[in-house]
Amino acid sequence: MGNVTVDITTSLDGFVAGPNQSREHPLGEGGEKLHDWALGLKSFRELHGETGGETNRDSEVLDEVFDAVGVTVMGRGMFGGGKGPWGSDPTFDDPWEGWWGDDPPFHGPVFILTHHAREPLAKQGGTTFTFVTDGIEVALEQAQAASGGKDVLIAGGAKAIQQYLAAGRVDELQIHVVPQLLGDGERLLENLGGELPELEAIRVIESPKVTHLKYRVVK
Amino acid sequence: MGNVTVDITTSLDGFVAGPNQSREHPLGEGGEKLHDWALGLKSFRELHGETGGETNRDSEVLDEVFDAVGVTVMGRGMFGGGKGPWGSDPTFDDPWEGWWGDDPPFHGPVFILTHHAREPLAKQGGTTFTFVTDGIEVALEQAQAASGGKDVLIAGGAKAIQQYLAAGRVDELQIHVVPQLLGDGERLLENLGGELPELEAIRVIESPKVTHLKYRVVK
Repeated sequence: MGNVTVDITTSLDGFVAGPNQSREHPLGEGGEKLHDWALGLKSFRELHGETGGETNRDSEVLDEVFDAVGVTVMGRGMFGGGKGPWGSDPTFDDPWEGWWGDDPPFHGPVFILTHHAREPLAKQGGTTFTFVTDGIEVALEQAQAASGGKDVLIAGGAKAIQQYLAAGRVDELQIHVVPQLLGDGERLLENLGGELPELEAIRVIESPKVTHLKYRVVK
Repeated sequence: MGNVTVDITTSLDGFVAGPNQSREHPLGEGGEKLHDWALGLKSFRELHGETGGETNRDSEVLDEVFDAVGVTVMGRGMFGGGKGPWGSDPTFDDPWEGWWGDDPPFHGPVFILTHHAREPLAKQGGTTFTFVTDGIEVALEQAQAASGGKDVLIAGGAKAIQQYLAAGRVDELQIHVVPQLLGDGERLLENLGGELPELEAIRVIESPKVTHLKYRVVK
């Protein structure tokens, strides 16, 4: 079976999103700029159906992740945000199909942690969203069954990642640290429960825009 | 004039000390292990009057800092902890002379931010503690005047560093990130005020025990 991995960008002060997340700012105020390092990369553009872009050490790091991942798990906020049952936000399309458009960048099965049951949603490019209401363990089992032996990526948000870390379910954690401070927002490494994961550094890759820190969870 | 620098070890979740700091655990529960990477190094041992020890990339990083620093500034908690005026903790010696023993590892002038006026305290090995009650700007002026053109190190704790960062007074920030999670304690990068410092990555140095991240404050 593949690894269960986390791969996420944080500010130097540890936030994966800024404060005041909204439909206009799904990543909160200032949160979009966390991902500036990735936007121009060939590997990132390809996933989003675009051509061109840079190849460098950062794109190699991204390629490595994309090649390894078979299935993605995410929280409901990362799928589509909003409060209350799907479509209850009157400004959202009904049924609301999330942030990711007609051809999402996942290109494989995606399992969404939610309390609201819903039929699976198939999109272009191989992405299917399956909504799991039975908790993180069941979602992970379903993801691993669908992964064909590849990695299962716990993509976010912070709360979903925290739950899997606290449950001891994550094998590898890669954090792309950008030289920015957000001051407030959604912090990655908190609410990890009483028995904290023990980590071992695997490697560090440096580039001008971002530092890629990779850890193995040893216990 | 030299730079104003910060050089400090944090856990991966951003803490410089664990929870429940006390006389027995000045760095809080679990906080001592943050510094395991440094204890065996030749450069660290020399500062503490000991011989032997390893030389490697980590010790080079430490040597670089020690060579550059002329004067140290720290908060009162880092000098000696305790609550209330000096010596008010009945378990402390009176007058309480801090955590650092007869031959402290600073080997130069140290300015302590405090609300309690006190005569300067001279120690062996060139360390003198001067107590400044007029705020961070005055302490920095005095430190720079005494630095002989070398760097002024804002050594800690977190609160002192935060105050200088928020005031736009820090030129360079080096964080030694160890692959540990503390879960709670004293966080370095918070309370930085409304206008957050803008950072530029200078370099990354990796070793098995710690990752040294160095940033320049550009604004």
